[in-house]
Amino acid sequence: MQNKIIKFSEDTSFISCGSAVGKCEHEGPIGDCFDIHDKTDQFGMKTWEKAESEMQRLALNTALAKVGYSEHDIDVLFAGDLLNQCVGSSYGLLDFDIPYFGLYGACSTAIEGIMLSAMVCSAGYFDRCAAVTSSHNSSAERQYRTPIEYGGQRSPTAQWTVTGSGAFVIGKGNGVRVSEALPGIAIEKGINDASNMGAAMAPAALDTLLRYFRISGKSAADFDLILTGDLGWEGGSILCELAQANGYDIKKKYNDCGMIIYDREAQDMHAGGSGCGCSAVVLASYIIPKLSRGELSDILVIGTGAMMSPSSILQGESIPAIGHLIRLQKPKGEI
Amino acid sequence: MQNKIIKFSEDTSFISCGSAVGKCEHEGPIGDCFDIHDKTDQFGMKTWEKAESEMQRLALNTALAKVGYSEHDIDVLFAGDLLNQCVGSSYGLLDFDIPYFGLYGACSTAIEGIMLSAMVCSAGYFDRCAAVTSSHNSSAERQYRTPIEYGGQRSPTAQWTVTGSGAFVIGKGNGVRVSEALPGIAIEKGINDASNMGAAMAPAALDTLLRYFRISGKSAADFDLILTGDLGWEGGSILCELAQANGYDIKKKYNDCGMIIYDREAQDMHAGGSGCGCSAVVLASYIIPKLSRGELSDILVIGTGAMMSPSSILQGESIPAIGHLIRLQKPKGEI
Repeated sequence: MQNKIIKFSEDTSFISCGSAVGKCEHEGPIGDCFDIHDKTDQFGMKTWEKAESEMQRLALNTALAKVGYSEHDIDVLFAGDLLNQCVGSSYGLLDFDIPYFGLYGACSTAIEGIMLSAMVCSAGYFDRCAAVTSSHNSSAERQYRTPIEYGGQRSPTAQWTVTGSGAFVIGKGNGVRVSEALPGIAIEKGINDASNMGAAMAPAALDTLLRYFRISGKSAADFDLILTGDLGWEGGSILCELAQANGYDIKKKYNDCGMIIYDREAQDMHAGGSGCGCSAVVLASYIIPKLSRGELSDILVIGTGAMMSPSSILQGESIPAIGHLIRLQKPKGEI
Repeated sequence: MQNKIIKFSEDTSFISCGSAVGKCEHEGPIGDCFDIHDKTDQFGMKTWEKAESEMQRLALNTALAKVGYSEHDIDVLFAGDLLNQCVGSSYGLLDFDIPYFGLYGACSTAIEGIMLSAMVCSAGYFDRCAAVTSSHNSSAERQYRTPIEYGGQRSPTAQWTVTGSGAFVIGKGNGVRVSEALPGIAIEKGINDASNMGAAMAPAALDTLLRYFRISGKSAADFDLILTGDLGWEGGSILCELAQANGYDIKKKYNDCGMIIYDREAQDMHAGGSGCGCSAVVLASYIIPKLSRGELSDILVIGTGAMMSPSSILQGESIPAIGHLIRLQKPKGEI
């Protein structure tokens, strides 16, 4: 393994972003930022799975529409979600006549897609890529846990799967830059409680962050924000403690998309948001616009994912997790 | 969408391959080619899912051992499988301390992984990548259909999920070349019979093949072999007929990994082999060695995948499919 941070050409940047979310996300602290929302979470569809696919279609269409693009302007799609066999993406994006790479990185898929898009665009294989991901609370509940009608009691460390889809159009331009990437290594530290994903994922986020700091010689002081995908309040505090124990104080710079998207007091979301859609919609509609306006200038984002399945948990396996890191910077020159 | 075939540097090539298979695959016509086999299909594990993970570990270890590599020599993994949440890969490769990109391309995953590995190596992001995939008949039967103990009757058009895992180490070298790639577009033509994947996937393979022929100006006459991943006898004959109807006679050059791996007469495999492991083990242990020895010199491989889930089929959806194309050439110079 080479100890190398991948660096992209200076013009590798976000051309456009789009998001679609459900009721709870719209009612949260950044609810007004999202492009599209549906208070029924159904998006006009008969099943939760089809609703999830429809969100992906809407998110990508919105991202394209913002810059006047059609499907012909996108050379390749990187997409994935949490549904078995990633059908949220395969059905949701079927209408688009665009070459398709399916990804599975659990909740890290948004960052995995952005990272791969930046690689293939910066290398010149494609002019413009789109990275799309989604999750839906109701499709996730019945697949991973129990149908929502069952009304199961949730553990305090459990997170709430975000109903949302984010789409990112990436290519050469002068927008918010994807400047560096460091892919994550799958890590498993003995956590086998599927109601405590934050604890399972925090060591993976730490591993990538420490590798980044060690290779680059940088620390939290060099960045405006160190943002994780969906560790939530439980996993986020574990990450900060583990970083401290390793000699890096990140607490003042740290935040998490799963903490940003819901109001801890007013909304009863337990340990915070999670799911493929969580980091996707927060990045697409809240963080990247802040970079674009110059309110943030240089940040690290670590997409976190827990790569177990209901079967592997029932078979007594621990939870492998991963953290993919990208560095985002405000547009060059201007504001 | 750009109408462009991706071309890789002349030294982008396979450094090593490894395979592990089960009983039926070892008893098939190319059974002696595979590196490792287990007549119990269990690989010493207590569950079929863990057996599948173990095959991935063995296949990658074998590929590394052949060239004296350790995990430190591999910069990044591209891996995926058919199990829900791709746990075959996330658990199987957890022992390797290597950055990990999870993929889901259904049965096209082996080719998707080779394609992405070639892209990132040819572009210079990484020196050496490994692409790993697997499928296991018994884990697939109980997840997609019924547990094998149920003894369900199979349809004549149904394919047999291959028990096997293939691993490919890709980087700069003078081995069998990955010279070109053309990613597939997801296509859905109204087939909703999950026992006839060949029919669902043939139009996707056709779409990519026709795009390749049209862009390159080439035809079947320019290649020694046009190989699909797992259309089987049913899907393979549909592809040849559809190609003929579009003005391309590919029949004499055509073969399919799902047809190669089993003996149609002696083994009762109905429409042939399928699964992420099918194209992976046939390529790793039969086709790439033939290119290496100069028995084949220039071939097209189309990895085919059907991207539905049991839920999407129950909800009445048709089957979206994809075909990713790579061109492989014998080593430059030599033999």
